[in-house]
Amino acid sequence: MRYTLAIHGGAGTIIRAQMSNAQEEIYNAALLSALNVGEAILKKGGTSIDAVEHTVCVLENNPLFNAGRGAVFAHSGRHEMEASIMEGKNLRAGAIAGVRNVKNPISLARLVIDRSDYVFMCAEGAEEFAKQCGVEFEKDGYFFTDHRFAQLMEIRDSDKVMMDHSAEQKFGTVGAVALDVHGNLAAATSTGGLTNKRYGRLGDSSIIGSGTYANNSTCAISCTGYGEYFLRAVVAYDVSCLMEYKGLSLAEACYEVINKKLVKMGGEGGLIAADAKGNIDFAFNSEGMYRGKITSESTAPIISIYR
Amino acid sequence: MRYTLAIHGGAGTIIRAQMSNAQEEIYNAALLSALNVGEAILKKGGTSIDAVEHTVCVLENNPLFNAGRGAVFAHSGRHEMEASIMEGKNLRAGAIAGVRNVKNPISLARLVIDRSDYVFMCAEGAEEFAKQCGVEFEKDGYFFTDHRFAQLMEIRDSDKVMMDHSAEQKFGTVGAVALDVHGNLAAATSTGGLTNKRYGRLGDSSIIGSGTYANNSTCAISCTGYGEYFLRAVVAYDVSCLMEYKGLSLAEACYEVINKKLVKMGGEGGLIAADAKGNIDFAFNSEGMYRGKITSESTAPIISIYR
Repeated sequence: MRYTLAIHGGAGTIIRAQMSNAQEEIYNAALLSALNVGEAILKKGGTSIDAVEHTVCVLENNPLFNAGRGAVFAHSGRHEMEASIMEGKNLRAGAIAGVRNVKNPISLARLVIDRSDYVFMCAEGAEEFAKQCGVEFEKDGYFFTDHRFAQLMEIRDSDKVMMDHSAEQKFGTVGAVALDVHGNLAAATSTGGLTNKRYGRLGDSSIIGSGTYANNSTCAISCTGYGEYFLRAVVAYDVSCLMEYKGLSLAEACYEVINKKLVKMGGEGGLIAADAKGNIDFAFNSEGMYRGKITSESTAPIISIYR
Repeated sequence: MRYTLAIHGGAGTIIRAQMSNAQEEIYNAALLSALNVGEAILKKGGTSIDAVEHTVCVLENNPLFNAGRGAVFAHSGRHEMEASIMEGKNLRAGAIAGVRNVKNPISLARLVIDRSDYVFMCAEGAEEFAKQCGVEFEKDGYFFTDHRFAQLMEIRDSDKVMMDHSAEQKFGTVGAVALDVHGNLAAATSTGGLTNKRYGRLGDSSIIGSGTYANNSTCAISCTGYGEYFLRAVVAYDVSCLMEYKGLSLAEACYEVINKKLVKMGGEGGLIAADAKGNIDFAFNSEGMYRGKITSESTAPIISIYR
């Protein structure tokens, strides 16, 4: 039986001319280490939900990406994170939003599936659940990075929000999709959202159907992009419906949603997708997307950044 | 040009044998007063988004329903409400969740569209936005009703949660969908969620795509039911996709989702739906649903409770 794993570390105005070789290597190494962790699980017959959770944890633990440790600063000067995860086998899902100081938001979303009757928890209530589950918390200092703090200071007194990485629009959300040897799909997404966001703003990363979706009969999807557009377009489930109801292939459905419908609305971003036949697809309408994949049939992982 | 308006006040185990004539009359009068407010707006050429907002406000202001004034008690002993609203003309949407003491959550969701660049706000942040917008707040006492407090006391020390109205499963969420004379659809949903809910639990009522969706090219949908299933099934957008991609009529699509797919998953509840051709549909897989409709061609509003 075959397995597949695909990941993203955000999409946006990522242009070769603005990246040094050293920067590229740092991103490549980070994406590779995440793929390796997920592949090790899939190779020994582990489940796709374990694979996507632990793959996303690696990305959350790396300050390069806007999730977990590297989450951007909200207007409050704190890190308000959101994440969601879904199993294609039984459509079970878990999501958390507006949580602070939780080391691995994606693992908390997983616990919502495993240890509650709920699907979605938010803010202090979700943090209380996290404490009862005994998940790891980190002090604010753990989430501090100089350049992200500088990003906040630059715009804090304005009404502006900022996509990850300064003025160029980049969305550093992370995610993973996988097919395991048992034929089951899963998807996971995690983010810190927008620099200087206020009012408990949530994006699509915690929303089942928008940022994350998995269904064995169609696909597993994890999105990254301008959250408000992804919410309004119900992006992840739209890909699934185009496959189920209109008979589009995985790649056709992803292209239709990201490169046609979202472009028409003015929504920038991308997604990663896997289906139960072993196909993987990357779709984005931005300049680039940090991404990678590995399958049981690959000789080596493939990592890409630019279009 | 024609207009239509449909409303619900929750679905569940609503059986004629358990309702007195007096109770029935109280519900009928409440639903009628909401329809009247919405129809007055549509009749004079007002917009569907104004109609659904103000119709839902009437239901929120009535302690009969589990939304606004009548919101159930969370485990915290407070009222944690969620609501969402969407315009079919431009797919603009607003949602709020985990908010306390806001008199009309649906109007706050509307303000998210009108006065922010966001789609979704939660918890204290959403309350801060509400204060800045100058919306009306009420003290906890406003939301207090004896029988709902008794419902909480009955189960507070257990791990149980309770659908609206005691042991029989009833979901008192409220909602409205409308088509205005300009040909534009809109949908709105508001709820207090589950009695004794913990951990900042959110249901589908604030989720664009699950509890609420509107798109002029397909339909406007507002759901009520067991939120976790509606989230996992992305119910509202599923109806839209069945129409858009599979060519189903409004009624066929609603039946497919509520009476087939949701039943298969074990999810109880229902929805109200309108399309741009002037059709209205009610679908529910529970014993009953408080519901009503009025159109420009009706001689009188139609209000129903049982199957």
